[in-house]
Parts: sequence; structure tokens; C-alpha cells
Amino acid sequence: MSSAPRIKGVLAPVVTPFNTDLSPDAERFIAQCQWMLTQGSGLAIFGTNSEANSLSVNERIALLDALLFADVDPARMMPGTGCCALTDTVRLTEHAVKAGCAGVLMLPPFYYKDVSEEGLYRSFSEVIERVGDARLRIYLYHIPPVAVVGITPKLVERLMKAYPSAIAGMKDSSGDWNNTKLFLDAFAKSGFDVFVGSETFLLQNMRADGAGCISATANVNPAAIDRLFREWRNADAPAQQDALDAVRKATGQYIMIPALKAVIAHYAKDPEWATVRPPLTELPQDQAAKVIRDLQALDFDMPGLRKETATA
Amino acid sequence: MSSAPRIKGVLAPVVTPFNTDLSPDAERFIAQCQWMLTQGSGLAIFGTNSEANSLSVNERIALLDALLFADVDPARMMPGTGCCALTDTVRLTEHAVKAGCAGVLMLPPFYYKDVSEEGLYRSFSEVIERVGDARLRIYLYHIPPVAVVGITPKLVERLMKAYPSAIAGMKDSSGDWNNTKLFLDAFAKSGFDVFVGSETFLLQNMRADGAGCISATANVNPAAIDRLFREWRNADAPAQQDALDAVRKATGQYIMIPALKAVIAHYAKDPEWATVRPPLTELPQDQAAKVIRDLQALDFDMPGLRKETATA
Repeated sequence: MSSAPRIKGVLAPVVTPFNTDLSPDAERFIAQCQWMLTQGSGLAIFGTNSEANSLSVNERIALLDALLFADVDPARMMPGTGCCALTDTVRLTEHAVKAGCAGVLMLPPFYYKDVSEEGLYRSFSEVIERVGDARLRIYLYHIPPVAVVGITPKLVERLMKAYPSAIAGMKDSSGDWNNTKLFLDAFAKSGFDVFVGSETFLLQNMRADGAGCISATANVNPAAIDRLFREWRNADAPAQQDALDAVRKATGQYIMIPALKAVIAHYAKDPEWATVRPPLTELPQDQAAKVIRDLQALDFDMPGLRKETATA
Repeated sequence: MSSAPRIKGVLAPVVTPFNTDLSPDAERFIAQCQWMLTQGSGLAIFGTNSEANSLSVNERIALLDALLFADVDPARMMPGTGCCALTDTVRLTEHAVKAGCAGVLMLPPFYYKDVSEEGLYRSFSEVIERVGDARLRIYLYHIPPVAVVGITPKLVERLMKAYPSAIAGMKDSSGDWNNTKLFLDAFAKSGFDVFVGSETFLLQNMRADGAGCISATANVNPAAIDRLFREWRNADAPAQQDALDAVRKATGQYIMIPALKAVIAHYAKDPEWATVRPPLTELPQDQAAKVIRDLQALDFDMPGLRKETATA
């Protein structure tokens, strides 16, 4: 069993930049990941907000390899590897583990609905057995509003019992604090690391023995979120939380992925960043302008966001 | 524009056999497809009931190639090619068109929910433009209980206007006849072929200018369903429909895919046929026994189902 320290804190499901022909833009992606790291954020690449489910397995592998080639630290990465097909999940997970990633964020197979707990248990179990690597650290990904198929406490209990080393934690994107609390109360003491899916719950999560957050908004507001993660015991923590919530509110009232990309496009002075892959569409210009105005009213900035990416 | 006759009638989303190590079993698959053809059923391989979404793109391509190598007629095939990732959908669709398949059954990208009509339009449009082959015939796949993301009349209207040759029809698995009727009334006269997702609606569909059905149960009851398709104008058509419904009822009260496989395993005398890939699980033995008893009470049989597959 590996004794490497577990990844904790703030991670961003890094948005994936596309060229105008909709191919992934590795150069912009590397620059963005490097910037995220300078801001204290880990890299939950290939998450929901990364449009990862709009990428083929080969495209994800090529992007991860590009990061490694650019010396981006895999110990700061938690790539999403859960697909509908068992064989795809195995391939991506194996690749991530061999690359030295800190962990993987794993969706359950999400096409078939109303599947049994036994079926989900077998899905994760098969992946763990096939990958067969003691370094594997799985974070189960619960995001019922999108995947519909979810993670239950009973499933976690069975998996932790069978695979105490591989099952490292979860990301709860239910948006329901009561659900998060259920998992924290049941498993946090056993070393199961619970990340909330939004920084809205970061202070609550840290107070309840949570491990951090993996949040869309960490793409644009990483330093401030990381600061609350480090300073949650401070007296000003509730004020910090309020400030985070205000930025979240400014970006979160639109469809999240195009909104994040519009914000990055603006602060990077790089309009091509706004490109999304179908079935998503870019944020309409008036909404993009409104997000920026609302953020500016909060004295929001993205210091050091590499403008060079604009000429890449 | 190709003038090849459109595929019509009864098609089965052919269940995919697996070896005990959960790898797809090409030999059993070929035998099953050959048997289906002798029973008058076309091959909607890689559908929902084929566990296609539990297969990687490479696994689907290898299975289609195995069928072609065994001289199974691609003009009788309508493979499922719709994936979450644009690039996967393009790759599978391109491969199917080059193989000479009659058409493709295309799910919308189904991970991201609440996507706009414009986003779905762009998804299908990108695939059509990238495949760029006049032989392409797309059947849009509407299955809201599983994919959640669905196909609307407005979307069909836009797509038919832009791509009158490529947009050939749809499969409606909503289970809601009023929805099917909406599409039939709006588009059947323009040559848009509507297949119902269950033979329960076959007679109604044929009377309303529909093209046939693509139904799970066609895996086990193909000849009788095909007979109603050919004889729907006959006086005994309602009686035929009732008989189909009775078989559907016997198999449809369980989780469909493992139930179909249990029936095939029984009539092929080949227990390994019951194998499913996670997240599905095999039908419990008592339920499997009950399905068989209920079918036997209906004098049901699967004549000519190749027993040789058992020793493959």
C-alpha cells in the first residue's frame, strides 16, 4: 500500500479549451493548468465542467500526456475517468495511475438508469481488480443532477470493506448538505475524504471533517477558495465564505461551463477561450457582458492569468 | 443522393453476448444475428438493449467488422452510433456508413442535461458535416427514460430542412403513443420514417404511416413481430397484436436486458448467454424460471436458434 499523502484542498474541474475546429487545445490547457497551480488549486481535469464527457478516451489521454510532457505535477491531479463502458473506465484509470496521478474521480456508469447497488458494486470492483495497482485512489463521483445514477452510503460501505486502500473518498455534487453530512458522519473517521462539489459548502465541510472542494468556480476564483481552505479556523472564515458565495452567484446564474469560459476569455483577453463543444453553446454576448460587470462590481480579478495563451 | 431503398419493418437491438471474462463474444454474436435474419428481423445492433453503452468504441467497431467478415448483410443493419463525445459519434458513424449499413440509430449526446435545442442541432449537424457521405441515413433516437436528453419536433424540423437526405427517421422509445403520433403527423409525409420502440405500438404505427418497430422483444419473438408488420392490413391483425403483447408482458416485467438473455440462454441451451456487463446483473434464477414458465404457457418457442453456439 502506498503511503503517499492524500490530495486535499481545492481542486478545479479544469475547463478544456478548444480550437475553432473544436479539437482540444493542448497548449492553452497546459497554460491554464500551470496558472491554476500557482493559485493553489489542484487539477481535477476531465470533470463535468471540463466537458470531459464530450471528449473521446483518446482525446483525454492525449491531453493528460501533454500535461505530463510539460512537467505539470501528476501528484496535483485527479482526472475524471468514469465512463459508461467498463473498458473505457479501466483504460483511463490505468493510464492515470501509471502517470502517477494522486487519484481519479470516478463517475458510475451513467447510461443505464435504475441499476442495482450490486451492479454498481460490480462496476467499481471490476475496475479496481483490472487496474490491479496498489497506487490506485478512487474518489467516487456523486452528481445526480447530471449523471442521474448516484452513489449511496451502502455502496461506499461495501466498497470500502472490500477495497480499503483503493476507495479514498468522494465528490458530492448533490448540492444537498444533508447528503454530504451523511457520508461525512459515516465514513470520514475511516479516512474517507469527502470533497464538496461547490465552495458554497466549503466552510461547513471543513468544520465537519471534510477534505476540501472540487468546484467549477475554482476555475476562475482559485486563490480565494484555497485561502478559505487554509484559513477555515480563522475568525474571518465566515466573511471569506460570503465573498466566495458572491463570486459564485455572479457566475452561477448562467449555464456554468460557457459562463466560466466567457470569464476566462475576458480576463485572458483571449476570445477563443469561449469555445465549447456541442451539445453546449457559448454564452450569449449580453449574458457574458453581464457576468463580467457583476464580477467587476466585486473587484474580482484573475491576476497572472497568462495572456500569452492568446497568441498560442 | 443515394437511391437505395430505406430499411423498414422489424429490427432488434441485438443483445450482445459476453464471455465469462466479460469480453464481447463475436462468435455467438454472429450466430445470433444470422438467426435474427432468418426470422425476418433487421439488426439494430448496438442499441440500448445491446448494452452498447457498456462497450468501448473499439469493441463496437470490432463486433461490426466481425459481422461483415461473416458476410452478414450490412443493408440489414442499423447500428447505434450516438455517444456522449462528438468525436466518438463521428468515428462510429463514419465506420457504419463505409461498411454499407442501411442507416445508423443516433442517440443525442446524453451526459449533459438541459441542453438547448441549438446545442443538439449543432451536435447532429457536426456529425453529418464531418462524416460528409451522401449514403448517411440517420435515425434519431428518442429514449427519454434512459438518455433523459430527448428529440423534439422542432429539432427534427430544423435538421430535415438542413439535411433532407441524411435525416431519415427516428426511433421513439418514449412509450407514449401521443408523442409518436406527433412526429408521424408532422413528418411521415415528408419521408421521415418513424419506428416505435416497442411492438406494443406496431399496429397503431403501421396504421398511422409508420415504418415499423425496433424492439427489445424482437430479440426473442422476431418472426411473429415481423408477421404483423407484413400482415397489418389483415383481419387478424388485432389478434396478432394481442399475441405479441402477451409475450412482451411475459418478458417485460423484469429488467429487460437480463430477461432477454435468460430467455435466449434457455432456448439456446447455452447458460453463458445470460452473462451481462456491469452495471447490469443477471436475472435471479427464480425470475428466470418464471419467465420461461410464462412463455411456455403461451406455447412460445425460438425455432432454429442455433444450439451450436453453446459449444463455441
